[in-house]
Amino acid sequence: MQNILLLGAGRSATSLINYLKDKAEKENWKIRLGDFDVSLANEKAAGHPSFSTIQFDILNKIQSREEIENADLVISMLPAFLHFKVAEICVDLGKHLVTASYNNPEINGLSDIAKSKNTLILMECGLDPGIDHMTAMAVIDEIKEKGGELTSFKSYTGGLIAPESDNNPWHYKFTWNPRNVILAGQGAAKFIRNGRYKYIPYHRLFTRLDQIHVNGLGDFEGYPNRDSLSYRKIYGLEKIPTLLRGTLRKVGFSEAWNVFVQIGITDDTYEIEGLESMTNRDFVNAFLKYEETQSIEDKLCEYVGIQRNSETFEKLKWLGIFDETELPLKKGSPAQVLQAICEKKLSLEEGDKDMIVMQHQFEYLLDGKKHYIDSSIVSYGENEHETAMAKTVGLPIGIAVKNILNGNIKLRGVHIPIVKELYEPILKELVHHGVSINETHS
Amino acid sequence: MQNILLLGAGRSATSLINYLKDKAEKENWKIRLGDFDVSLANEKAAGHPSFSTIQFDILNKIQSREEIENADLVISMLPAFLHFKVAEICVDLGKHLVTASYNNPEINGLSDIAKSKNTLILMECGLDPGIDHMTAMAVIDEIKEKGGELTSFKSYTGGLIAPESDNNPWHYKFTWNPRNVILAGQGAAKFIRNGRYKYIPYHRLFTRLDQIHVNGLGDFEGYPNRDSLSYRKIYGLEKIPTLLRGTLRKVGFSEAWNVFVQIGITDDTYEIEGLESMTNRDFVNAFLKYEETQSIEDKLCEYVGIQRNSETFEKLKWLGIFDETELPLKKGSPAQVLQAICEKKLSLEEGDKDMIVMQHQFEYLLDGKKHYIDSSIVSYGENEHETAMAKTVGLPIGIAVKNILNGNIKLRGVHIPIVKELYEPILKELVHHGVSINETHS
Repeated sequence: MQNILLLGAGRSATSLINYLKDKAEKENWKIRLGDFDVSLANEKAAGHPSFSTIQFDILNKIQSREEIENADLVISMLPAFLHFKVAEICVDLGKHLVTASYNNPEINGLSDIAKSKNTLILMECGLDPGIDHMTAMAVIDEIKEKGGELTSFKSYTGGLIAPESDNNPWHYKFTWNPRNVILAGQGAAKFIRNGRYKYIPYHRLFTRLDQIHVNGLGDFEGYPNRDSLSYRKIYGLEKIPTLLRGTLRKVGFSEAWNVFVQIGITDDTYEIEGLESMTNRDFVNAFLKYEETQSIEDKLCEYVGIQRNSETFEKLKWLGIFDETELPLKKGSPAQVLQAICEKKLSLEEGDKDMIVMQHQFEYLLDGKKHYIDSSIVSYGENEHETAMAKTVGLPIGIAVKNILNGNIKLRGVHIPIVKELYEPILKELVHHGVSINETHS
Repeated sequence: MQNILLLGAGRSATSLINYLKDKAEKENWKIRLGDFDVSLANEKAAGHPSFSTIQFDILNKIQSREEIENADLVISMLPAFLHFKVAEICVDLGKHLVTASYNNPEINGLSDIAKSKNTLILMECGLDPGIDHMTAMAVIDEIKEKGGELTSFKSYTGGLIAPESDNNPWHYKFTWNPRNVILAGQGAAKFIRNGRYKYIPYHRLFTRLDQIHVNGLGDFEGYPNRDSLSYRKIYGLEKIPTLLRGTLRKVGFSEAWNVFVQIGITDDTYEIEGLESMTNRDFVNAFLKYEETQSIEDKLCEYVGIQRNSETFEKLKWLGIFDETELPLKKGSPAQVLQAICEKKLSLEEGDKDMIVMQHQFEYLLDGKKHYIDSSIVSYGENEHETAMAKTVGLPIGIAVKNILNGNIKLRGVHIPIVKELYEPILKELVHHGVSINETHS
């Protein structure tokens, strides 16, 4: 019997917990599920015979050490900033650790000790980061093995609403933390195109779009992510002339979102005054010129250069930003107020299905000729709880855990899933869960 | 005899030191000039009989206490973040302190102890903050005294180049810390107009201009400063419907500077890659789209919506941003590189004279009628060392010091110059130094 300690029973752990339940008997696992809110852990464990639960606090050092000591492997779904504390104890006690969060220099510094303790610390093993690494490296390794030279790698990922649940003019709903959507793209975007470094400030980001077609799903647009440059080193593509990572949205989303960026209403750096007595309409007006002779709608259109009869204007109106209704938030930053307004209209409803779309576009030279590979993943959620987002974050962790515990994965030290020993078994099993790669070569 | 300890002998202390020299004999002052770089202190003291110098380090607690103990009054021209350390010792030893830097809650917290020790801590006694407070409060108090009700207060200040030294298409040179000019306006601007809160994001700031006419100097433009709202409390104008503070530039400056803001080249939050091998032209290109068929000039014009034959384009070209010359900086943020490019062309030359322009515009109701007061100050520098900037920062300090030491100013505790006892003697004497207020009533 092997013991797994799973820390964190929140929304993002749902699919992972289901995976662990499914495999527990066959794999002979006992799962200890800890959460600061033990009732949440109880609810998720739901009396499954292989599960036990505990009120868990990582800041309680005695408890943390005791629980980790009793485990063979730890999965941490805690907030990212707490992972170093978990990793330190895991390495000290020689217990494997798997998380879906970004690796960092502090955790990376534990690699040598981890190796000496025969321990694996596997970071970035979710969707993004996670499946993006695995699917990218599967193709990159394949191209390198046959002697090809990568000349361009563009990659776009989006957490979107499935076509059957797409019933609003934004063609978008919040399928993950809404705050991250509101603040998305803040800071400059950095990438390289044909050997030229390119930098885009936030206020221009949503106008610098690539068009992406996904078979069966139609046209999307992609805006550049903050930092594409660092991926050259991660993927061993230091000399690649073009590398760009971006976020996918349905066509038209960015033009409308850009209106918010343009007027400054996504700013999270200050508290706005006088919210107590403002309506949605007053709130928007605070970001427009003082001009008594014009309607707020006309002022906005003129300020950002859109037409009253445009789809973009329809999107804004549908969201309720011009309504004479009481603001849903009485105190906060512009971004927090905008989030509250958006959540009223863009949240998942009962039965809604989300979808994850990821597309990698590779160009490479082989025998003097240019070749192209497009590699896409489309994954759908079951409902508003078992989302594609939770599935694609949770399943890679679950599969990694299985392969570590059964000895298929023998790697030790601190790693992210960019090596074949890690990505191969995970990608292979993901197919059985409806997460499969569609590759086209040309 | 009275002893003055002056901490900091840098560029901004030049006019203050000259003032102290002029008055030392008559007022029976001994001035102790301390700087971390004692050679700078020696150079500025220049053997004046009332001056002695010392290598001074505020982090040396024993020295600091000893020097402050021997003084009747301390003037601190040290970097703003060091003022609390100075203020703490001054209050403890019961010595007056005068600075030109912003007050803060930490220093303000010393007010009661200062009072109990019969000590004055006078903050914000330079130009801006300083003369702006004094000239504003002189008019505000006057309006209130005759029973008027302030309905609007707009105030604009600019550190500019004097017409006789204005020989470039920007009609601008760096007369103060260039870094502050490059980063000016970052963060949102906040003000209130006709009872409506208004917020402007940085990337829109240089398009939201007011036109300002100054008698004898022609037309200027003003863009809003970051935080006008806090001045309502400072000036006792909590209910005023319109309050806006802004920065003055010659007409056309903002449209050209806005090009830099638009392309993201004033960003100071990240280091740019590959600078070693870039020319000015390559650097600008990094902020433009990848497009092989267009010249960099055309790409820029299209991206930001300006014409090749415009004055704005002329300004950019004159600055050398399209030149195939080696970058003046090989490592740094976009803002740092832009600063280095600008410094080559926009620095003061030998004999250059700068000028300070400040204009307050008041509207008030009295006996049911609207009245207007415009109050302007224009002050010129002598040359590139004795600048108007140094003069308008240094003289208010010098005059305050004189009036504290001769007993005219009896106020105790922590203050800024918004009360008559402080601003009246300072404004009165400033006139004799060519800093006089021009008021028009209508």
